[in-house]
Amino acid sequence: MRTQIELITPIITEGVRHLDDVKPLERADLSVSHTLIQQGPASIESEFDEALSVPDTIRKAIDAERRGANAIIIDCMGDPGLQACREAVTVPVLGPCQTALHTAGLLGHGFAFVTVLERLRSLVGKLVAAYGLKDSYASFRAVDIPVLDISHDLASLSAALAREAIAAVRDDHADVIVLGCTGFLGCAGAIRKALLSQGLDVPVIDPIPLAVHMADALVKTGLSHSKLTYPPPGRKALQGYSFPEFSPVASH
Amino acid sequence: MRTQIELITPIITEGVRHLDDVKPLERADLSVSHTLIQQGPASIESEFDEALSVPDTIRKAIDAERRGANAIIIDCMGDPGLQACREAVTVPVLGPCQTALHTAGLLGHGFAFVTVLERLRSLVGKLVAAYGLKDSYASFRAVDIPVLDISHDLASLSAALAREAIAAVRDDHADVIVLGCTGFLGCAGAIRKALLSQGLDVPVIDPIPLAVHMADALVKTGLSHSKLTYPPPGRKALQGYSFPEFSPVASH
Amino acid sequence: MRTQIELITPIITEGVRHLDDVKPLERADLSVSHTLIQQGPASIESEFDEALSVPDTIRKAIDAERRGANAIIIDCMGDPGLQACREAVTVPVLGPCQTALHTAGLLGHGFAFVTVLERLRSLVGKLVAAYGLKDSYASFRAVDIPVLDISHDLASLSAALAREAIAAVRDDHADVIVLGCTGFLGCAGAIRKALLSQGLDVPVIDPIPLAVHMADALVKTGLSHSKLTYPPPGRKALQGYSFPEFSPVASH
Amino acid sequence: MRTQIELITPIITEGVRHLDDVKPLERADLSVSHTLIQQGPASIESEFDEALSVPDTIRKAIDAERRGANAIIIDCMGDPGLQACREAVTVPVLGPCQTALHTAGLLGHGFAFVTVLERLRSLVGKLVAAYGLKDSYASFRAVDIPVLDISHDLASLSAALAREAIAAVRDDHADVIVLGCTGFLGCAGAIRKALLSQGLDVPVIDPIPLAVHMADALVKTGLSHSKLTYPPPGRKALQGYSFPEFSPVASH
Amino acid sequence: MRTQIELITPIITEGVRHLDDVKPLERADLSVSHTLIQQGPASIESEFDEALSVPDTIRKAIDAERRGANAIIIDCMGDPGLQACREAVTVPVLGPCQTALHTAGLLGHGFAFVTVLERLRSLVGKLVAAYGLKDSYASFRAVDIPVLDISHDLASLSAALAREAIAAVRDDHADVIVLGCTGFLGCAGAIRKALLSQGLDVPVIDPIPLAVHMADALVKTGLSHSKLTYPPPGRKALQGYSFPEFSPVASH
Amino acid sequence: MRTQIELITPIITEGVRHLDDVKPLERADLSVSHTLIQQGPASIESEFDEALSVPDTIRKAIDAERRGANAIIIDCMGDPGLQACREAVTVPVLGPCQTALHTAGLLGHGFAFVTVLERLRSLVGKLVAAYGLKDSYASFRAVDIPVLDISHDLASLSAALAREAIAAVRDDHADVIVLGCTGFLGCAGAIRKALLSQGLDVPVIDPIPLAVHMADALVKTGLSHSKLTYPPPGRKALQGYSFPEFSPVASH
Repeated sequence: MRTQIELITPIITEGVRHLDDVKPLERADLSVSHTLIQQGPASIESEFDEALSVPDTIRKAIDAERRGANAIIIDCMGDPGLQACREAVTVPVLGPCQTALHTAGLLGHGFAFVTVLERLRSLVGKLVAAYGLKDSYASFRAVDIPVLDISHDLASLSAALAREAIAAVRDDHADVIVLGCTGFLGCAGAIRKALLSQGLDVPVIDPIPLAVHMADALVKTGLSHSKLTYPPPGRKALQGYSFPEFSPVASH
Repeated sequence: MRTQIELITPIITEGVRHLDDVKPLERADLSVSHTLIQQGPASIESEFDEALSVPDTIRKAIDAERRGANAIIIDCMGDPGLQACREAVTVPVLGPCQTALHTAGLLGHGFAFVTVLERLRSLVGKLVAAYGLKDSYASFRAVDIPVLDISHDLASLSAALAREAIAAVRDDHADVIVLGCTGFLGCAGAIRKALLSQGLDVPVIDPIPLAVHMADALVKTGLSHSKLTYPPPGRKALQGYSFPEFSPVASH
Repeated sequence: MRTQIELITPIITEGVRHLDDVKPLERADLSVSHTLIQQGPASIESEFDEALSVPDTIRKAIDAERRGANAIIIDCMGDPGLQACREAVTVPVLGPCQTALHTAGLLGHGFAFVTVLERLRSLVGKLVAAYGLKDSYASFRAVDIPVLDISHDLASLSAALAREAIAAVRDDHADVIVLGCTGFLGCAGAIRKALLSQGLDVPVIDPIPLAVHMADALVKTGLSHSKLTYPPPGRKALQGYSFPEFSPVASH
Repeated sequence: MRTQIELITPIITEGVRHLDDVKPLERADLSVSHTLIQQGPASIESEFDEALSVPDTIRKAIDAERRGANAIIIDCMGDPGLQACREAVTVPVLGPCQTALHTAGLLGHGFAFVTVLERLRSLVGKLVAAYGLKDSYASFRAVDIPVLDISHDLASLSAALAREAIAAVRDDHADVIVLGCTGFLGCAGAIRKALLSQGLDVPVIDPIPLAVHMADALVKTGLSHSKLTYPPPGRKALQGYSFPEFSPVASH
Repeated sequence: MRTQIELITPIITEGVRHLDDVKPLERADLSVSHTLIQQGPASIESEFDEALSVPDTIRKAIDAERRGANAIIIDCMGDPGLQACREAVTVPVLGPCQTALHTAGLLGHGFAFVTVLERLRSLVGKLVAAYGLKDSYASFRAVDIPVLDISHDLASLSAALAREAIAAVRDDHADVIVLGCTGFLGCAGAIRKALLSQGLDVPVIDPIPLAVHMADALVKTGLSHSKLTYPPPGRKALQGYSFPEFSPVASH
Repeated sequence: MRTQIELITPIITEGVRHLDDVKPLERADLSVSHTLIQQGPASIESEFDEALSVPDTIRKAIDAERRGANAIIIDCMGDPGLQACREAVTVPVLGPCQTALHTAGLLGHGFAFVTVLERLRSLVGKLVAAYGLKDSYASFRAVDIPVLDISHDLASLSAALAREAIAAVRDDHADVIVLGCTGFLGCAGAIRKALLSQGLDVPVIDPIPLAVHMADALVKTGLSHSKLTYPPPGRKALQGYSFPEFSPVASH
């Protein structure tokens, strides 16, 4: 069976995520398509940004399933709308954060979350608690660079991330690094090299490539989220959003 | 100082929440105003419903602060948009769920969450974990009545809730009952009476009256949420939502 | 309804707590009265001191309820006798520690307990665990000044507390400060100002004013502790203490 | 070295604890002496009872150390005054509850606490949390017989305890039984026999004999509690209690 | 890149695991080879059995890496030797238990472990704790059929497993089923059908197919376990086992 | 009754453990015998080493019970084979790690594990989690000296351990020190003295003497591990190991 994965980047800014980023992940039996949202924020750096990104992310997830996707990935480490999307569709929906954190558990005893902004510390703490992974959470570290500036200078970004990764291992006793922003795609190699140069042989998880292959693994084993926990939303009146699937059927 | 509390009911359905519900809570130094949202779902019974309720809830919170409210309560036990609203305003924003669960900690050793629908079990579990209160979570019980049917027959609703409350105390060893839907406003007395008739002297928390008085207590002590954790969202392009406060200032 | 709160300071030393301290908290519908204990220690700085303070604290709580108090606050951050008092009376009994820690949960993700003596670290850790709040406990910090010296130089006390509060935020990632001694009453403003001057906008909880307003909120919502968990003590022979309420009724 | 253990029964009722109970535990190198308190309750069945038992328990502990005891056991499963006594003396002070729960950890994966009264559920839960043993707490079961009635009919008491012990193993998946009242001394054999007759080969901990031998083990290895955590109380004015050791030295 | 996975069945009994079992998992870019161990037990049903299976499992893992495997799976839900194998090789080593439990976290909020024997309850509890997944552990259920009898009557085995799975969902509130023995390979479909027939739409994880695809995902993303945590064993004298890789190099 | 304890040192190297080490622990009613294993590693410093030490440790445990030992101690702080040995015998089997960690709970609020090698951090973390003691785990510290070099210079070893112990108390807030290698036998006194010289009155646990006396206490109270959790392994074919007790009985 061919796996068709839809990557939904829950922001409106074009040019941040390129299809070139994910094309290398494709194989004979795996293809990846990509979409932005049309309604929402330019980038996600707060709970406010997340909140505005979710309604259209759900819309895109429903559309993707309808067009034949058999797995969906939300391209943001806050996993915005993850639970709501799981209610709205039946194909597996993966958040790169949840996927990376659980995979970190297969690789070591404590992960570090290395990300853009210190202000996300509380948001990440709440995700980790909600995912039941507090026992493996070793470290939160931020480089304090706004998301939309990430792409301007990848070399100095990687250097900053590497510094925090090394500190997370040495001072916080982390043994797996989770890159805390999907915009860091492609930095993992340089960070791992920097760790190795310090004698620290620890894996660095680049969440989007990982989520793509994990989604493929779920598809190939026929698994999806528990619809007992994520049943479809009931039909009801909705104002300001168009979800005919979950709105009352007009009688006539 | 006079406390002015805004109660935001994050649904579009008129008639579910009446100002009569909250007027009795007013005092010489405390007034409560009320608003629905204009964009969102008819009721909240899923993660999907929550997601659609949040953007306009944030809008209403900003408006309320601007109009002079010195505390805001989100009138839903899922606390939708609680963190995002805290970023958007500086006056205290209370979720009735978080408020009730912490207050339960002042009254006993383990609370039962007694609510409408079994499908909310996972959503409540994640809230409890994110709030750091797993150690006090004794029981989840549902009566399986849709939210919009609640008001049709308050007597049989109260009876069903009382049955679950009694079971939560007897079988799950809860010693505080938290009513798990703000639509249950006014049922607490009957449920407590039913518990007492079984020799079970346990408090029953009606979350909205409690949140109103707790918000007043925060206002009177000059406390609000930590802006270190909930700083204002940065200004950035937003499509499909109008938040001039957090959008780029047009140059000219 | 008028709320009448009794503040019991569980030490024998006059002059540490003044009625002036609490008078400003009174309102038309809220009055606060105050009492010391007659049997017990001069101050509370150890488990030993706590143990000796409890019997007369219970006596005072029973007396206060009898005289018409509809809420009781034990004026010590070790919450000595909290559970025993709840057994002995039916009106709500609040410990300022438990109240402050739960309120901290409404304001941020992790609290710092900033107090007098390093030796209280273990006592506080056990309270936090018993209250089910370990997940939110970010930091314990002490200024190492004996309790009875607190009032001698409030300015330098506040400065010392502010230093520890800033360190708790910066180094331990706390985002709410809980003042760990009720003798710090009145220092919160200066500490918060010091935090703000460092760009750290975090709330500082002054436990007694907060407990007074929280007690009022409980009274106004008709809530008290679970008598299922805190039933009255059975009547039995008692030597060396006079509690006719809980001693055998003499037959004649 | 000869171990001299003092067993302090923190109640005023004579005849409940006999020296005969502990004499069989003596050996050539181990002797056990016994004392009641003079001020306090007739039995301990509540937080109130505990509170009244503690001051004289501390007094007895200090006296015992002075008379040469090299270990002290508080003869009540609520471990009343455990921390305060550790501050007051330097020889090891054991609570039978804490000792039994940690020993249960050496014997199986989850213990059941089988005790007299349902009302102790919350008190036990708080002890377990404060001792850091929540992960091993499988079951709380009560037979609902008042403490002072225990000795009247040991056979039917044992039968009731055995019923709860069997239910704790079968229904709550406990694999170690901790007898939850030191007044159950001597029932362990019958309960274990009843368990074995159901094919349930689980150990039954009789806390006082265990605590005696564990105290001896600490003495023989030269270990006592951490005085860093339990330093002596500071000297200060005390009213209503006579502790010259910790009261101001009169100058002259 | 072609993924070559070695499945090591850590028992000596031929005929339990067939290459036919795993052949269907192969793809153009993925092949699976299989080996038994030569020293160890006939089946694994105890800690004793596990202990005897580990040394030769390590031997087989080293051999597999040397022969070019780029991922290794230990074919037993007790994950015997998982950590030791990770020390001995650098390619990813997966335990089907750890892999299934983390994947369950991507599918629902609480998993049930449904396995052969009640006696494994404690062993599974310790694995779950060591993996940091206690917060998601909803249920342990056993059908009490010895491992080597599993294959005799797959239909009645599936029926027994389905009964326990349904009970785990209904009574223990699990929402993901993890099959707790790799010998259950192929039963997942029937169990899921039985759940669906009761209106319970929950995923059923068949651990070996899942581990194969997850291992492939790790290989394709270039991830392996943290060698910081799993460094190679030092060379030292070994008696009774032949591991020239980790034994002293003979000088001559 | 005379207690006969067998100490099994699970390595093949003679001369590391002397009977002189344990002779001083003997008393009129307590004797200690000692054995090495014949198959396994020269020392234990990894999961690999542990795995190879377990099969013959089980053999030695069975032999010891047969020869009349009424308690068994595995002489390694990784507690290798603890669970398997408990299945194989009925007399109590103690791991010095589990015993020391639970005893630490009787002495203070948080223990530090001070050991040889940094690489054991993860192994110890998993043991602590499996033993349900995460709440009391304050600190892991290593001196980075290989096990077989320990005996070469006890003075400088003790000095290095003391440095880490002091740091564990000052920086990590530990209040009990657990020596993390049974090869440290005899260093406890010097480390405690070093701590005291810094004003840090904290106990230092030397695990083997403690385990000997704790084993004696279990024997004297008639307690052993729960055979419900550790039932004997079933009889089955075993290759490469000789355990006639658990192998099929030849028919004839």
